[in-house]
Amino acid sequence: MTALVGGIEAGGTKFVVGIGTAEGGSRVTARIATTGPDETIAAALAFFREHDAALPVTAIGIAGFGPLDLDPRSPTYGHVLATPKPGWPGTDLRGRIAAGAGVPVGIETDVNAAALAEARAAGDLADLAYVTVGTGIGVGLVVAGRPVHGAGHPELGHVRPRRHPAHEGFAGICPYHGDCLEGLASGPAIKAAWGVALDALASDHPAHGAVADYLAQLCATLLLAVAPAKIVIGGGVMGDGHLLPVIRARTSALIADYLPQTGPDALETRIAAPACREPSGLIGAYLVAQGVR
Amino acid sequence: MTALVGGIEAGGTKFVVGIGTAEGGSRVTARIATTGPDETIAAALAFFREHDAALPVTAIGIAGFGPLDLDPRSPTYGHVLATPKPGWPGTDLRGRIAAGAGVPVGIETDVNAAALAEARAAGDLADLAYVTVGTGIGVGLVVAGRPVHGAGHPELGHVRPRRHPAHEGFAGICPYHGDCLEGLASGPAIKAAWGVALDALASDHPAHGAVADYLAQLCATLLLAVAPAKIVIGGGVMGDGHLLPVIRARTSALIADYLPQTGPDALETRIAAPACREPSGLIGAYLVAQGVR
Repeated sequence: MTALVGGIEAGGTKFVVGIGTAEGGSRVTARIATTGPDETIAAALAFFREHDAALPVTAIGIAGFGPLDLDPRSPTYGHVLATPKPGWPGTDLRGRIAAGAGVPVGIETDVNAAALAEARAAGDLADLAYVTVGTGIGVGLVVAGRPVHGAGHPELGHVRPRRHPAHEGFAGICPYHGDCLEGLASGPAIKAAWGVALDALASDHPAHGAVADYLAQLCATLLLAVAPAKIVIGGGVMGDGHLLPVIRARTSALIADYLPQTGPDALETRIAAPACREPSGLIGAYLVAQGVR
Repeated sequence: MTALVGGIEAGGTKFVVGIGTAEGGSRVTARIATTGPDETIAAALAFFREHDAALPVTAIGIAGFGPLDLDPRSPTYGHVLATPKPGWPGTDLRGRIAAGAGVPVGIETDVNAAALAEARAAGDLADLAYVTVGTGIGVGLVVAGRPVHGAGHPELGHVRPRRHPAHEGFAGICPYHGDCLEGLASGPAIKAAWGVALDALASDHPAHGAVADYLAQLCATLLLAVAPAKIVIGGGVMGDGHLLPVIRARTSALIADYLPQTGPDALETRIAAPACREPSGLIGAYLVAQGVR
């Protein structure tokens, strides 16, 4: 039996903390509102202390909002880098959890941790992309079994899709790029363009087709760039999954039989909703903990 | 001293064969026109046989035109997959070279081999993208020190950039996608749109800006997707490199300070011409050979 580990899904609005294993899921979880780093980190540590007698953990994994320094050779490894969240820039998130909990602590981006969890859930796939469409659009990538960091931090949610005709005249809301993918198809972008959330619009409203088209362009770019065996798309905007068939059909049309396994039948399983029963990020945090030496 | 190895840069119009090492370069090379597989493979084997007494090789690396089966667990590992080149689909390129030469043979795509060679030339970078802009547009990716294969074969040259205003009304020439990157900015696409090659157009012709814009969109996508430490751009269309400053400036504007190390100064070295003195693909083939067990 795998030893229990701790997981922290460190998000911008809340921290989800839990104790369990990637294989067995959570034994206990809690939610902590994300305020300043001192208060939030203290609350996370208190959770593990509270359960230490009954559910001791051998390691903790953090799936954190970015940008994070994930270069183990860097003097600021595990620190939060520049972020608009007050108080957080420069916070030694990994070091402070490790010092407080007294166990080894691993750290990964939230989207990469989710990608690791979904890759495991899909049968240990070596190549998988995880896309979350909510307040922002984040993409995690596992290539050849390992999360992709590159030299810096990839942020594929800010790629620029071709504009959809139903969206003409909308400038996009990304403060950096205007009409990048996040500026066009995130939850706040949908509200800015059409006044309400996607699930509040009639099923024949053109917004559905536009958002699906933008996400299909992202899927096509992912298939052309790193050919993941599976693309998992989750997040609040995806709701009940009604966009998935449209995204699959449009992605297949964009690839136009140029790559293997991109016909409508293949994409039926290759582009899918998350398979993890618990939030992929928390299961990913357990995986990160289980990989800590 | 590293033992001599053989390299085969297997291209669609010619095979370049050589004997040397990645560190020391070529001792001897030859060019073979690409005809049918029997004739071309026989000529390549004859080259190594001719030099076997004076320059014996311990292994051979192939940097091949795609698509190739690069899954070592596949029964058709090292075979050429579907390609319009007559006679080549299904050819066991790796197996036939290995059987004829009697040494271990490794195989990689031409663009990934070139990326490996450029990563080595840049000081053993772990993350590098190699882009070649010529008859087609090919992209090789090294992530965390290893060439990216994914589940299938990535072909980022077929991503769809936003259209440049100077190019309105041009449908693009890709038989699959029309106005994908290769359909807009490859050598044949430039000739189809403007009648001549890029270097035959006056320096103030809008074609330069349009092609640079399309390639900058590719660079931005690469930085956002996998954050390579360096993007190397070569190939016939790049000519004397006059597009590079325009590509750098446009890429920096597209990223808009959203990622670290994407300002104009950083991109001065991060987006660059090939550094290998010999064709990157042939040096990459030597590297592949040197890695064969």
